[in-house]
Amino acid sequence: MCGTCGCADEQPRTIVLEQQVLAKNDGLADANRDWLRAKSIAMINLMSSPGSGKTSLLARTAREFDGAPLSAVEGDQETGIDATRLRESGCPVVQINTGTGCHLDATMLADGLRSLQPPDRSVVFVENVGNLVCPALFDLGEQARVVLASVTEGADKPLKYPHMFRSADLVLLNKIDLLPHVDFDVAAFIDAASMANPGVRVRRLSVSTGEGISDWYDWLGEQVPA
Amino acid sequence: MCGTCGCADEQPRTIVLEQQVLAKNDGLADANRDWLRAKSIAMINLMSSPGSGKTSLLARTAREFDGAPLSAVEGDQETGIDATRLRESGCPVVQINTGTGCHLDATMLADGLRSLQPPDRSVVFVENVGNLVCPALFDLGEQARVVLASVTEGADKPLKYPHMFRSADLVLLNKIDLLPHVDFDVAAFIDAASMANPGVRVRRLSVSTGEGISDWYDWLGEQVPA
Repeated sequence: MCGTCGCADEQPRTIVLEQQVLAKNDGLADANRDWLRAKSIAMINLMSSPGSGKTSLLARTAREFDGAPLSAVEGDQETGIDATRLRESGCPVVQINTGTGCHLDATMLADGLRSLQPPDRSVVFVENVGNLVCPALFDLGEQARVVLASVTEGADKPLKYPHMFRSADLVLLNKIDLLPHVDFDVAAFIDAASMANPGVRVRRLSVSTGEGISDWYDWLGEQVPA
Repeated sequence: MCGTCGCADEQPRTIVLEQQVLAKNDGLADANRDWLRAKSIAMINLMSSPGSGKTSLLARTAREFDGAPLSAVEGDQETGIDATRLRESGCPVVQINTGTGCHLDATMLADGLRSLQPPDRSVVFVENVGNLVCPALFDLGEQARVVLASVTEGADKPLKYPHMFRSADLVLLNKIDLLPHVDFDVAAFIDAASMANPGVRVRRLSVSTGEGISDWYDWLGEQVPA
């Protein structure tokens, strides 16, 4: 029944409207991308389930990564909790509240970037609404997509949410410090991610302990425009 | 931009369509509710983030709860993994795959119930798509809503996803066996749930170890029609 989130619907009007909304979004995303390229800014769209550790990852990255200036656009249904956490790490942040909405879109990002005014040759993180479904459908004009999963969520998630994992340039498997305490098959997760997205890079890390975090910084360094 | 998932949009056509879709859904949900009441069937809509433990909870419940016959409608974007797990626990299951869709709706449930043919005086679980946003908006005709959270997800989730928690009749906080290994403030979570939904019942449990599970069975027993 859901129009622009892509659910099947027998009403032709809904399908036409969905196509129109996605086409309009794609056009605006291209405009965002052009604007970012002209300023040599790398925008990274970070997506996950609620609670996988997106904000913790960005807060730690803001404190430790020194390869480029960082800023962020935070998407949440309500509250500015995550934006406050990130600002405390020294990262300039614009908060977007989506109300009952389930994802950010290119229009929101255009507004967010205008408000954020990121410097040339910097990295802008987008922390999307915690949701493994809808955000996958909406191009924001990002340079790369990072999907964060965690070892408390079950190794089958890439198979059950294939659109999200298919769109990822990098998959991060977080909370590996909890592996001794949970029933999680890392090899099965990597296999599932590869089935959804052949050849996708999967990196294991713990944002809490810092294990594996250097791989993330290496990847991020590669994203910074020369 | 998202029509029927409730995001703000300036296009009047989208808003009108959203209202039409939700109104049509509500009518079908009422029809489902009437059908279920006539057969004295309690339908329980179970919602959470991906990986909070919905399927594990239902599989354990199917093995242990003896208060009424159980069956389930499983909603996933893709795969029949959860349905297979549940069937192995002896629970009759109908699987609905939503494709790119982010929630179940009343039409899907009408089809699912027709296929499931649950017996009179039984309980039907609906395992909704793992998502804390969109499923909150769609009445399926259920008797009660249960929102499952886990201690690995962060205590602020009820504030960040208030629509979901506001609609809950019961909130279950799962994975309490992991509390010694994570930074999670149980009191803050309960406060946040109460802010979103004053007076809502919150029960702590571990589906893995069984701690607290009897509270869940007690609640479930209260739901079974006399």
